[in-house]
Amino acid sequence: MEIVDIINKKKYGKALTEKEINFVVENYTTGSIPDYQMAAFLMAVYFQGMNDDESTSLAMAMRDSGDVINLDDIDGVKVDKHSTGGVGDKVSLVLAPLVAHLGAKLAKMSGRGLGHTGGTIDKLESIPGFNVVLGMEDFKQQVRDIGCSIVGQSGDIAPADKKIYALRDVTGTVDSIPLIASSIMSKKLASGADAIVLDVKVGSGAFMKTKADAIKLSKLMVEIGKKSGKKVTAILTSMEEPLGHKIGNSLEVYESIETLEGKGPKDLTEVVSVITGHLLFAAQITESYDLGYELAKKTLLDGSALYKFYEFVEAQGGDVDFIKHKENLLGDTKQHIVRATQKGYLEKIDALSFGIAGMKLGAGRMHKDEKIDLFVGLDLHKKIGDTVEIGEPIVTLYHHDKGLEDAIELINQSYVVGPKKRTTKLIEETI
Amino acid sequence: MEIVDIINKKKYGKALTEKEINFVVENYTTGSIPDYQMAAFLMAVYFQGMNDDESTSLAMAMRDSGDVINLDDIDGVKVDKHSTGGVGDKVSLVLAPLVAHLGAKLAKMSGRGLGHTGGTIDKLESIPGFNVVLGMEDFKQQVRDIGCSIVGQSGDIAPADKKIYALRDVTGTVDSIPLIASSIMSKKLASGADAIVLDVKVGSGAFMKTKADAIKLSKLMVEIGKKSGKKVTAILTSMEEPLGHKIGNSLEVYESIETLEGKGPKDLTEVVSVITGHLLFAAQITESYDLGYELAKKTLLDGSALYKFYEFVEAQGGDVDFIKHKENLLGDTKQHIVRATQKGYLEKIDALSFGIAGMKLGAGRMHKDEKIDLFVGLDLHKKIGDTVEIGEPIVTLYHHDKGLEDAIELINQSYVVGPKKRTTKLIEETI
Repeated sequence: MEIVDIINKKKYGKALTEKEINFVVENYTTGSIPDYQMAAFLMAVYFQGMNDDESTSLAMAMRDSGDVINLDDIDGVKVDKHSTGGVGDKVSLVLAPLVAHLGAKLAKMSGRGLGHTGGTIDKLESIPGFNVVLGMEDFKQQVRDIGCSIVGQSGDIAPADKKIYALRDVTGTVDSIPLIASSIMSKKLASGADAIVLDVKVGSGAFMKTKADAIKLSKLMVEIGKKSGKKVTAILTSMEEPLGHKIGNSLEVYESIETLEGKGPKDLTEVVSVITGHLLFAAQITESYDLGYELAKKTLLDGSALYKFYEFVEAQGGDVDFIKHKENLLGDTKQHIVRATQKGYLEKIDALSFGIAGMKLGAGRMHKDEKIDLFVGLDLHKKIGDTVEIGEPIVTLYHHDKGLEDAIELINQSYVVGPKKRTTKLIEETI
Repeated sequence: MEIVDIINKKKYGKALTEKEINFVVENYTTGSIPDYQMAAFLMAVYFQGMNDDESTSLAMAMRDSGDVINLDDIDGVKVDKHSTGGVGDKVSLVLAPLVAHLGAKLAKMSGRGLGHTGGTIDKLESIPGFNVVLGMEDFKQQVRDIGCSIVGQSGDIAPADKKIYALRDVTGTVDSIPLIASSIMSKKLASGADAIVLDVKVGSGAFMKTKADAIKLSKLMVEIGKKSGKKVTAILTSMEEPLGHKIGNSLEVYESIETLEGKGPKDLTEVVSVITGHLLFAAQITESYDLGYELAKKTLLDGSALYKFYEFVEAQGGDVDFIKHKENLLGDTKQHIVRATQKGYLEKIDALSFGIAGMKLGAGRMHKDEKIDLFVGLDLHKKIGDTVEIGEPIVTLYHHDKGLEDAIELINQSYVVGPKKRTTKLIEETI
């Protein structure tokens, strides 16, 4: 087998065999195929696409390039969720204790934030003492003991995907649906869960800007999951505006606790309930999705899963007393309030710009090794459709001076108050 | 300017500016843009193409990456020709003395053969003593003195093209018309000629397999020439069967001498006359192409340019006495005759397979540094449309045993004798 022949085959629009895809992934990972041939191959895939079988083969080949976690020695149905990344997306923080409380097992590896999207690991690290690095046995034991654990990606999960993603990033081959789908699924298939819900964000603050693309990506990921023997559901959720009110690491922990207390924002409560509903049904804990959804929502609203969050934090070494006084999570930040200069309805909040504003304050990083400020961020007082009076607060910025002016300027350009009362659809589709 | 942005721009089908193309070529040549980004860029060009302006900018940027030869200190109109490469294509050997005799100046750099196509430099080296390496001043002085010189590519002509071509070769990005056109033209624009005829071969033995592609390539090269201030004409010539009868280095010198004696094969005589006609007209030596063509043909047929070939060989140190006895050019090769086993007309000769058969005998090389046998090759006794009787010779193989059986087997599979008297069209189009 010759890589040039495989490049040409894809270039001419023919489907590759599993053997050919394995050849590409294995030899690229070991370095026998150089970056320049892989780059040409990836660009050919960008233009010619990959069918479901090819995408599945690619996901499985990348999965098999490293450790595949085996959770068989944990009783019960192991569940997992993945979000394609949005602004204010703190779903995992709420969902982990919720599903654990309701009887499923969640052994989750999460990432750090990059660009305008946050990362669960950064958020958890805003809790003093919280340890995101556990050995595999400790990680599993915690799941056996309390039902959930969230750690940073450790070990050698899908190294082929890491190497290919780094190349895609510098060769203009990121925005290819088969490449995105197989990248996400390679890691999810390696994570050992039996049932997975994929939360595919769509809109300005998301990687997928259009619903059509988000549907394509979702269908492909569900198909890859099915072909690999996993129960996978995808939901399309709107990232037209940030999820919930708070953006920024400790601020999002704050809002997650509020949600577990039953006082969370409607949209966040809804998304967590929907995902949990699917997971509970897949785990055969409830007899239908609807029953799962109802159970999840009721549990959130009555605050009965909050104790599990504290258990979870404590198990990973976090300071529970600190977070029990939520105001601690605001740190020593200063506050600046952006107020409305017009009367009407909030018609638009550009999630992407709000994410970037948070980054400018220091809540996010442009490059992998940048330090971030765990306490800064934004608190939205209005969501799309809300009435706005002149002088009313739109957003509070929690800041340490850094980036404040840039962030204010960006925010002023990124929301629209007008005469129309718009409604947004949170869950766009279930696949 | 960022290369990733330029890759994306091309990927999304937008035309690049001259500045952007210069940025890519300059930074790739110096190594600031790594191979993997260039490979992705080239694959994006493969899929999205380049318009005439972009292709011209690319050709000029590659031209300017190295030495640009200045022939202004040679009086008269400097002409050049380029063939996209075929089997038995010895046009330059006949054309150089012919145009010099008729008053134009030909200062030509040629290449070596690769794969199934031969190279003028290899052919000239089959003449004992012939020196293909001249200093620039000696090269020019010879053109001033006798009107023509052919040397190997020396100095640093279009190094960007060399580097890009080497990358295309291993990344499946060879067969892109804008990339082929700008590669050829970058070297031709650097060669210093005022008028250029491009001989674009089409058919099984050529790089362009279809007439449609050959026309596209021709039009684009003529356009690049025009935009760069050169008089460029392209002719499409058939490479359905080999050109002339002889394939192999010294054998092609043999046939070139025959042609200059007025006893050459019809097709070779015709192609040389057509190209010379265009060059004479462009050089304002004749008042029209037709007069140029007539003059060229008459001169070939009456043998009056033969002396110029001897002058040319002598000027470059070649042994004129040796070639005056043409049989010397057969060396000590053995001969094997392939005879017809059927009666009828020769309906097909697969030029590609005949080229490969020559290569198997040792006349050509697969890799750049392979040694070749200058004396082996093939002599076709029949061309398409000729009558064939059982037992009549079809091809004589001149060989040194090496590869003989493979070559015979290949030849037996690569010609067809049947009931139809086919005619071929030699000059398919003039652009």
